[in-house]
Amino acid sequence: MRQAILSLEESKIREVANAGMGRSDVLPFWFGESDEVTPESVRAAGIASLQAGETFYAHNLGLPELRAAVASYTSRLHGDVLAERIGITSGGVNALIVAMQALIDAGDRVVVVTPVWPNLTAQPRILGADLHCEALEPDADGAWQLDLPRLLAAITRGTKLLVLNSPNNPTGWTLSKAEQESILTRCRETGTWILSDEVYERLYYRGDTASGAAPSFLDIAEPEDRLVVVQSFSKAFLMTGWRLGYLVMPPDMTPQVGKLLEFNTSCAPVFVQRGGLAALAQTESITPRVVTHLRRCRDTLVPLLQAHSGVHTSAAPGGMYAFLRIDGHGDSLQLAKRLVVEAGLGLAPGIAFAPESERWLRWCFASKDVARLGQGVERLANWLARHG
Amino acid sequence: MRQAILSLEESKIREVANAGMGRSDVLPFWFGESDEVTPESVRAAGIASLQAGETFYAHNLGLPELRAAVASYTSRLHGDVLAERIGITSGGVNALIVAMQALIDAGDRVVVVTPVWPNLTAQPRILGADLHCEALEPDADGAWQLDLPRLLAAITRGTKLLVLNSPNNPTGWTLSKAEQESILTRCRETGTWILSDEVYERLYYRGDTASGAAPSFLDIAEPEDRLVVVQSFSKAFLMTGWRLGYLVMPPDMTPQVGKLLEFNTSCAPVFVQRGGLAALAQTESITPRVVTHLRRCRDTLVPLLQAHSGVHTSAAPGGMYAFLRIDGHGDSLQLAKRLVVEAGLGLAPGIAFAPESERWLRWCFASKDVARLGQGVERLANWLARHG
Repeated sequence: MRQAILSLEESKIREVANAGMGRSDVLPFWFGESDEVTPESVRAAGIASLQAGETFYAHNLGLPELRAAVASYTSRLHGDVLAERIGITSGGVNALIVAMQALIDAGDRVVVVTPVWPNLTAQPRILGADLHCEALEPDADGAWQLDLPRLLAAITRGTKLLVLNSPNNPTGWTLSKAEQESILTRCRETGTWILSDEVYERLYYRGDTASGAAPSFLDIAEPEDRLVVVQSFSKAFLMTGWRLGYLVMPPDMTPQVGKLLEFNTSCAPVFVQRGGLAALAQTESITPRVVTHLRRCRDTLVPLLQAHSGVHTSAAPGGMYAFLRIDGHGDSLQLAKRLVVEAGLGLAPGIAFAPESERWLRWCFASKDVARLGQGVERLANWLARHG
Repeated sequence: MRQAILSLEESKIREVANAGMGRSDVLPFWFGESDEVTPESVRAAGIASLQAGETFYAHNLGLPELRAAVASYTSRLHGDVLAERIGITSGGVNALIVAMQALIDAGDRVVVVTPVWPNLTAQPRILGADLHCEALEPDADGAWQLDLPRLLAAITRGTKLLVLNSPNNPTGWTLSKAEQESILTRCRETGTWILSDEVYERLYYRGDTASGAAPSFLDIAEPEDRLVVVQSFSKAFLMTGWRLGYLVMPPDMTPQVGKLLEFNTSCAPVFVQRGGLAALAQTESITPRVVTHLRRCRDTLVPLLQAHSGVHTSAAPGGMYAFLRIDGHGDSLQLAKRLVVEAGLGLAPGIAFAPESERWLRWCFASKDVARLGQGVERLANWLARHG
């Protein structure tokens, strides 16, 4: 087997979860997933499709009606996007690796802003890229910040691809429009492609954009720019398990991605795509409810954490995570394992996302029952009182 | 974008299908798919899962119960295979590219036996492999044969991977057990991995094996051999549109593939996997019926074709295709397009599968209504009478 694959780290989040295996009393906040089932109306659309016998291959790029619906939805948020720029994929992660297959040759320089969910750094490694990580830095309040001049300097003429995830998993850091403009200008100069993972765009709490969504590169770029935006139905529509996502790309790239989809997965199942169509048709009833609830989760959890001296965290402007640091606990993997075993509290270790977040923990606050978050903080507080 | 991706050929089958776009009177036999809906009981399992709210992420390698069911099913056909050797994927094609990601570095020598469905040659190209094609040859009756000594000589010490598809799409060619033994022996000498695409194994008509399935490398290999077998639910269970497949691999490889699945698709949807479980539970009622019907399709189509002088084809021992050659027509792409437009008959051009099958056409005989096959031959005969 390839050394590049053998060297890929197994998920440290999974390692923590395994430490709690067989314990039914753990409160799990480790995975990036709401515990709320997909809305009934979306499931009904998938069921109706199966009943109707839609069990055949579909177009590589997705059902034409779904591509049109995605284009219309995207246009409402970010200005005109044509359906010819849309490709439907088997989840956001699948969109990302297909985009990278289109863009990265072995040996190409790829810049990634970290901390970030591990898939975004693993994928370039799988493709043999020369990976360069640019680290965010936490301020005194625990909010992570970009050193923009340093990032711009890292985007050299030899940089094939820049990978960004904003709103960011795990830190909540979110690019401003001005920062996106600087980055786009620099990438135009260097000929660098931007791969922007914007799957948390609807989970944005600042309220300073017209659409309510986080700033997107689609707001400022031209259709022909070297920009690929990755999206997913998972977060805004509670559809993680459906594995449905999409790409927004330059029109010239679409047929190339169509070929790659054929050779990766052929297509997303039609009955899954019908669920996506139902979700988009009901976005005004589903997504605002999801976002309002997540904001309530965040605004419940973060003050409870901040009430403890020695616990440092900041309310994230986007996403569904609190990222926190606890004084006196530097080894996040060991700490997360102890919290599982000794406190019955399941968090993700910061080391899973980058070396620079070694002292941090990620807490997914997407909890249907908000009271669970308070119970979790109580467990943390009790444990800190004993071991702090 | 990468030159390797720009250079990938778009599907010539699709090019022919596009020539018939908007014509409702074409009889389509071009795609590798039955026109029969997935059995109701399998769809019911997917529906029940959606109703139960199974809409969350699953294990990367698949539901433990599905892995166990696949292992048990495989063991019944080919001798003991443990569940730890099984990984569930989003279709057979997804299993193939994930296996190749695990095994091929850019520049590695990969040998593929052709003609073969285009994905098997495109995937190594995507990964930057140095591709070497070994061609089958048709005998006087139109049956394609392997030059075994030539293949063995092509498997050099520097060959990282050998890719085989038997029963073969498009030719129907099927490896014998003796041939598989020679190939396995040679690959053990050279340290070459075997990637064996056996998705048509149940569609086997010779009746010379104990299980009824085509000879498999699993019949003769040890668990630790450098062998990956790719399977799919598509053919034996009429589940093309579900995108569900699996790998059988050495136990040491399974955790590596688990990582790669995380970075490619995360997992197959749980409600899709429930369909797979239902299919395996009913394999004795579903698959023999499918195979009996396909044999009837083959034995209807092939003699009708052979009745025409100038049409050369041989009854395939496996698969669901008739592969035919028509005297005086050498350009298969042009011929296939003319047949669509002038005869209303949709076949796949041989050039889609390899240069050596340039003069051939592929006819998928998986037709629910057997009479459609006769109608197709009539259209061909009438066209030949005018243009032959």
